[in-house]
Amino acid sequence: MSYTAPTRDMQFVLNEVLEVSSSDVPGYGELEPDFTSAILEEAGKLARDVLAPLNASGDREGCRLENGVVYTPEGFKAAFEAMKAGGWNGLDLPEAYGGQNLPTIMYTAVGEIFVSANMAFNMYQGLTHGAVGTILAHGTEAQKATYAPKMISLDWTGTMNLTEPHCGTDLGQIRTKAEPQDDGSYRITGQKIFISAGDHDMAENVVHLVLAKAPGGGEGTRGISLFIVPKFLVHEDGSLGRRNGVSVGKIEEKMGIHGNATCVMNYDGAVGYLLGELHRGMSAMFTMMNEARLAVGIQGYAVAEPAYQAAVTYAKERLQGRAVTGAENPSGPADPLIVHPDIRRNLMDQKSFLEGARAFVLWGAALLDRAHRSDDAAAEGLISLLTPVIKGFLTDKGFEAAVNAQQIFGGHGYIEEQGMSQFARDARITMIYEGANGVQALDLVGRKLAADGGKPVMAFFEIVKGFIKENEGDEALNADFLEPLKAASKDLQAAGMYFMAEGMKNPNAALSGSYDFMHLFGHVCLGLMWARSAKAAQAALANAAADRAFYETKLATGRYYMARQLPLTATHLARIRSGAEPVMSLPAEAF
Amino acid sequence: MSYTAPTRDMQFVLNEVLEVSSSDVPGYGELEPDFTSAILEEAGKLARDVLAPLNASGDREGCRLENGVVYTPEGFKAAFEAMKAGGWNGLDLPEAYGGQNLPTIMYTAVGEIFVSANMAFNMYQGLTHGAVGTILAHGTEAQKATYAPKMISLDWTGTMNLTEPHCGTDLGQIRTKAEPQDDGSYRITGQKIFISAGDHDMAENVVHLVLAKAPGGGEGTRGISLFIVPKFLVHEDGSLGRRNGVSVGKIEEKMGIHGNATCVMNYDGAVGYLLGELHRGMSAMFTMMNEARLAVGIQGYAVAEPAYQAAVTYAKERLQGRAVTGAENPSGPADPLIVHPDIRRNLMDQKSFLEGARAFVLWGAALLDRAHRSDDAAAEGLISLLTPVIKGFLTDKGFEAAVNAQQIFGGHGYIEEQGMSQFARDARITMIYEGANGVQALDLVGRKLAADGGKPVMAFFEIVKGFIKENEGDEALNADFLEPLKAASKDLQAAGMYFMAEGMKNPNAALSGSYDFMHLFGHVCLGLMWARSAKAAQAALANAAADRAFYETKLATGRYYMARQLPLTATHLARIRSGAEPVMSLPAEAF
Repeated sequence: MSYTAPTRDMQFVLNEVLEVSSSDVPGYGELEPDFTSAILEEAGKLARDVLAPLNASGDREGCRLENGVVYTPEGFKAAFEAMKAGGWNGLDLPEAYGGQNLPTIMYTAVGEIFVSANMAFNMYQGLTHGAVGTILAHGTEAQKATYAPKMISLDWTGTMNLTEPHCGTDLGQIRTKAEPQDDGSYRITGQKIFISAGDHDMAENVVHLVLAKAPGGGEGTRGISLFIVPKFLVHEDGSLGRRNGVSVGKIEEKMGIHGNATCVMNYDGAVGYLLGELHRGMSAMFTMMNEARLAVGIQGYAVAEPAYQAAVTYAKERLQGRAVTGAENPSGPADPLIVHPDIRRNLMDQKSFLEGARAFVLWGAALLDRAHRSDDAAAEGLISLLTPVIKGFLTDKGFEAAVNAQQIFGGHGYIEEQGMSQFARDARITMIYEGANGVQALDLVGRKLAADGGKPVMAFFEIVKGFIKENEGDEALNADFLEPLKAASKDLQAAGMYFMAEGMKNPNAALSGSYDFMHLFGHVCLGLMWARSAKAAQAALANAAADRAFYETKLATGRYYMARQLPLTATHLARIRSGAEPVMSLPAEAF
Repeated sequence: MSYTAPTRDMQFVLNEVLEVSSSDVPGYGELEPDFTSAILEEAGKLARDVLAPLNASGDREGCRLENGVVYTPEGFKAAFEAMKAGGWNGLDLPEAYGGQNLPTIMYTAVGEIFVSANMAFNMYQGLTHGAVGTILAHGTEAQKATYAPKMISLDWTGTMNLTEPHCGTDLGQIRTKAEPQDDGSYRITGQKIFISAGDHDMAENVVHLVLAKAPGGGEGTRGISLFIVPKFLVHEDGSLGRRNGVSVGKIEEKMGIHGNATCVMNYDGAVGYLLGELHRGMSAMFTMMNEARLAVGIQGYAVAEPAYQAAVTYAKERLQGRAVTGAENPSGPADPLIVHPDIRRNLMDQKSFLEGARAFVLWGAALLDRAHRSDDAAAEGLISLLTPVIKGFLTDKGFEAAVNAQQIFGGHGYIEEQGMSQFARDARITMIYEGANGVQALDLVGRKLAADGGKPVMAFFEIVKGFIKENEGDEALNADFLEPLKAASKDLQAAGMYFMAEGMKNPNAALSGSYDFMHLFGHVCLGLMWARSAKAAQAALANAAADRAFYETKLATGRYYMARQLPLTATHLARIRSGAEPVMSLPAEAF
């Protein structure tokens, strides 16, 4: 299946919506259009020529375990070499360890492109990026020197080991043990499951980050520490030593992402090295999880982009039926699907979501850069608040978009050969891993909303209000964009008020509405991004920009989102206000 | 995976909501609780003991084509013998040909049970039922005598051949040719694709109903006729003769329903017999399609029922986290998932949909019985109006429910071994085949709404209004059920008015909202069924019925649907009223 990176749209968001190169975030000054464009085009080329052609074949072939060795699908190894050669994994990582130290917003845009081209493949790199980030944040100087250069270069890859058969979300229950040794290392014993990129044949070594319980930490999550457990032990000179006591028990048969080896990992007295503080493993792991949640949010919409592109091509080529207002292809046997209003409705749902999501995620990455590069606590608070929305909302809607794209193909969409089933199957996991979306909603309502005395959520409302106030003199913008945004934002505030009033008395009253709140929040975020995008598009048109069609399309797409998606906020609010009673009233045995 | 037929709920709908045995529809008098219960329990036993155990293995193994012969998964043949032995296919078919002539409502209830247990398997029977129904409706006496007994007994099975590689919905484009022969038969040549149950090893013969173009019929759908093309020709004495010129080109690799052989069928001068009138094939095929659309609507929710049952079991057994209001399983390592509000929200979404859908479909079957057995044109008009709603709405929501059930399992839901992926993959096809759901919406808004001068839709509103008026004195019913129903019904009427006012000027204004209208209509239908169910449950409680817990659960579940699902009608209306502009404004090249 062919894939073309949406570099034009990315450029619009970077240069015209977020105006990155004039931002005061350190490092943003160099993000001039020519520079960012060169990076995105290069990523697009790799995606189109190398990664996308392996997407369907990787799905069909899957990974296999033979005599303890994991083999990835045909072609993955060569593609991984190309990924390494491009230095993509180090794009936003420190130069001291071989990275390029660019802002994370660039890594984010490139990440969307690679995920779209081949999500299962890109996870080998993505998990390594998260693992090395955790080592850089919590490791000793020696650990950083040992692991970071090799992992940034992708000579070695990384994994994250949390889940065990009897617990996923509730990590306090883990049983994997870490026994301290005289030399300061630990022996790790236990079983971890659902380990993405757990092993493979594309790198010399695999560096596992493993949550385990060392003696003396107490019950529950307090007893958890984080350990570095390499597949091959590393000598002091950096060369590889003997095989460590970690092996692959099996590769799971999954609904999708077949090209990624999801492994059962067995640790049998494996040598492990404490990463960060003893008994503070959860907080170290959160570094990795937060990045991973954003990454999964990106996957959520990115996997739907090639599905949309394929659906558009099919809708223009497949001749079926006639336009109700008169034949548009009178010399052919029928009109193309795209003349039909319901096909349009479906495609517009996808398009308006995808572009809104892209702007939202890049804004999120800009907040992250501001938080890290300017040590800006407000930005840190805001992206922390938005992380569960990005993860939960974008993955739910991304799956919906992929399913919608599949629907355009009719019966052909259900046949594996066509490739549309894969997008839906792959997208499905994004709603589940890195905290199922219900857990994201719980995190949002139970933790993030009240964090720091509610400052982050207040700041969010100020941004929305500020934007509306600043622009309400613009009539066109006001009617089509600001009014719907104002109404949606009011619904979000009303939902927050309801939680404050009722949640105090009964926490279930808030938590019964948490999922709806996450979606309500998501719509307001996309509404804000569309309003900002519309303003930028209007400005370009007023300045007689060359590419009028692009900006007019942008405005029409935004109007669609505002008119047809934002009204959902009222339903979410109505559900939230129905409270705990409908949700909680049945005894368990009544189900 | 285990499955228990929801016979208690079916009994409630039959006896207390629809009050079948006191209905004046011919044949309904015998539907006493003891009688219907015996049938449902027997079907439940077959489903639980024979069909459900083959569901996952059938998915894993799939069908295979070897030297032109199609083999079904291990165990299917024996199960098919059990299905035959029970006489289930003839439940509502004429006694003259070996059927039992029971009302279709019983076949419908039994159908739900079999689909839930094993959807892919049940399609072999289901398609045969549709095909023999078409022969009974349009065949000559000789054709009926030749085919009906063998097909009702399932010695022979049936298929329906419409789609060709270049056309599905737009059948006017078909290229399969029928050449008349001197003996009155035809020679059929062409290729048909996506033929469910196209061939297999469980029956002596397969009777294909094939759409083809015979000379002299003109362009488009007017030139189409319907033919009976048996796999083996049938001698006058009913014995099987030589193999006909029809063969399986391949079995498609699909996203789901792997246990059903979806075949490419090649017709190479195959002998065919005209069924019904020459050049009137489309209207004959509609007999089959209408039944098939209802059957797919049943599949839509039925496939989600075992997924719900599995999710409930998992939510009660899996220990993860603690209730926010205090531990409920303090002696265990954690509380069961079911204590968490968002898990409840998810399960209640499924439960309230499934029970509402069941009542809706059984009401639809009762309308069908009234139409056929009492020759009631009003009932015929109403079920014709509701058919696209049953098909489109119940399959969209059924898929959503199956995906939600899968979500309860977290990462385990994504692993094929658990079985939850299969429910989602199987459910996905129901939104596509027998007319993709966009086509159902088009049928509803473009055809059914205005049919017979709008009489059927007026009749529907009268039923809703009548029920509200009749019961508004009942305060409890009024607040929780009638008020929300009234509001939703008002939204539906407003949408209809919008279509009338705007659709006249621009048909795209109506068709841009067709999908939302289908969903809006679906919610009003389920709202009506919940209001009726609530009334019946209240009556039972007032009459000191033994099974109080059942009725109280019914009321609580209904309240959930009304409070949390019906508010969606406002969003659908808002979208509809946004008209054609947002949907249609982009030129095709802007996508």
